[in-house]
Amino acid sequence: MPAAKPVILTGDRTTGPLHLGHYVGSLRNRLAFQDTHEQFLLLADAQALTDNAHDPERVASNVIEVATDYLAVGIDPSRTTICVQSHLPALAELTMLYANFVTVSRLERNPTIKDEIQQRGFARDIPAGFLCYPIAQAADITGFRATVVPVGEDQAPLIELTNEVVRRVNRQAGRDVLPEATAVVPRIGRLPGVDGKAKMSKSLGNALVLSASPAEISEAVRRMYTDPNHLRISDPGQVEGNVVFTWLDAFDPDVEAVAALKEHYRRGGLGDVALKKRLDDILQELVAPIRERRARLAADRDMIRDVLREGTLRGRARTEETLASVKEALGLFAF
Amino acid sequence: MPAAKPVILTGDRTTGPLHLGHYVGSLRNRLAFQDTHEQFLLLADAQALTDNAHDPERVASNVIEVATDYLAVGIDPSRTTICVQSHLPALAELTMLYANFVTVSRLERNPTIKDEIQQRGFARDIPAGFLCYPIAQAADITGFRATVVPVGEDQAPLIELTNEVVRRVNRQAGRDVLPEATAVVPRIGRLPGVDGKAKMSKSLGNALVLSASPAEISEAVRRMYTDPNHLRISDPGQVEGNVVFTWLDAFDPDVEAVAALKEHYRRGGLGDVALKKRLDDILQELVAPIRERRARLAADRDMIRDVLREGTLRGRARTEETLASVKEALGLFAF
Repeated sequence: MPAAKPVILTGDRTTGPLHLGHYVGSLRNRLAFQDTHEQFLLLADAQALTDNAHDPERVASNVIEVATDYLAVGIDPSRTTICVQSHLPALAELTMLYANFVTVSRLERNPTIKDEIQQRGFARDIPAGFLCYPIAQAADITGFRATVVPVGEDQAPLIELTNEVVRRVNRQAGRDVLPEATAVVPRIGRLPGVDGKAKMSKSLGNALVLSASPAEISEAVRRMYTDPNHLRISDPGQVEGNVVFTWLDAFDPDVEAVAALKEHYRRGGLGDVALKKRLDDILQELVAPIRERRARLAADRDMIRDVLREGTLRGRARTEETLASVKEALGLFAF
Repeated sequence: MPAAKPVILTGDRTTGPLHLGHYVGSLRNRLAFQDTHEQFLLLADAQALTDNAHDPERVASNVIEVATDYLAVGIDPSRTTICVQSHLPALAELTMLYANFVTVSRLERNPTIKDEIQQRGFARDIPAGFLCYPIAQAADITGFRATVVPVGEDQAPLIELTNEVVRRVNRQAGRDVLPEATAVVPRIGRLPGVDGKAKMSKSLGNALVLSASPAEISEAVRRMYTDPNHLRISDPGQVEGNVVFTWLDAFDPDVEAVAALKEHYRRGGLGDVALKKRLDDILQELVAPIRERRARLAADRDMIRDVLREGTLRGRARTEETLASVKEALGLFAF
């Protein structure tokens, strides 16, 4: 019997269509994981509600949008299970059980939560669901019995909290009911926006979505922030903080060519126009087939619903099995 | 068609067998509600875990004990639906949805939570599940679509929080998806312990459980706190704070006779022995049939499991229906 593949859980909050930042930071890696891992992709609509409770319809409509993005980039539902979080009741039950093992002060100490409370301007009015979302995340990860979890570089503390819950459950059960998870930080982290801002987001208008048209791509590259002091082609230019180079690092498969371009740019004699032409070509080539597949897929929503229904059923079987074993291990009432 | 009966939700945390305090404060009323209301009785094992996470087996074993108490006092499963909270996943899902509508500061302001945090000695280390239990309670109440909820006199704020959630859901849905609930405070509140302490509890050793033996009852009455200054029968005695009188008020059906006894006691000439004899007789007569039924029932655990299984199925149908209507009203993703 071949060794079982490691289980990986990843996913996205369904608050908007995915963009090229998602592509380099996660989608591309997920394509590779399809062969090496048992991969679950969670459409995290329930988590998205923790700070979008006023607008659940946006969250709901983006379930299909994000699923379409997945399929458009090449996620294969026969090798990756795509499921909808709000249709997995075992995750809610696990969250409630784990909430008894995690203190409020532990949640408040979490640096990610601290940052996000500030970012979202919640101040003292944090919804309880938002404060508790790391517990829900522990339920997601353990519910699928994932041992590998790709995270942003600032999110490793969330996995630590998950593992604290895992150890607590295992200690109380006197045996290893749940596996610990390992955080994997992708090689390419967060891609800066077209305007050089650290965070790329559709609402900031500095993102390129996966369905961007050829004109949108060219316009975004044209606007892209380079080195404001690089006025004449012959001037030496700066590579650090130059968004075009950051994007070339992320998208250009020819690493040596990019290194040579950086050298040339620093020396002087390489103009922004030539540089941007290269990036534009690469992005057009990358996005064109995704855009075309996405348009075809978007015309067949029933098929996408079928994919989600089937994936969610598989996810339900997995998470219900975990819930049953946790309840049994902790000695909860059983009929 | 006859008007539908109002829906009442009540229940108990399954942390120990019920005692005479429960009998006067709630069980007795529930017998009456069986005819006038559609009554759901929730064995709140999940809520009991919020401050008993270290001892889930105690919580689990008391599910059957409390259910046995219910049947022993005369709760009739054909007129009252008895269900086990941890087997109603819709309640966990509703809790997660509602948690996005309730802020952490709102929970911290709750006077019941404040008191209980002190009582249980949690200080800064409150489990998140404990802080959030009023949200879970809102899920219980609304999940059954209860409009009547019996509560202790200090618990009315919990119902107010439930109704805030109800109004928030209805406002967002633009129609009345959930009914508001009314708190009903029973005529007889908390029965003091045998030792005069305000709280009667098995762990304090000042409670009489429903299966108390004749000797245990007599011993408890004998130990019962009266008026320490009432040394000779001819002395005037104090009625206020005299536990025997508080218990007579709770258990003696002859209100006029008790009023006459109080008058006599105050005047002097009525001894504690005579008074206690009367209470002992009343309690022996009350408990004897409960104890006998309880012993018979306890011998047939399979029957009790069947009652719980059937009630939980009914409760599941009801709460799943509510969950579906809330999800639909809020516009969550549906296949």
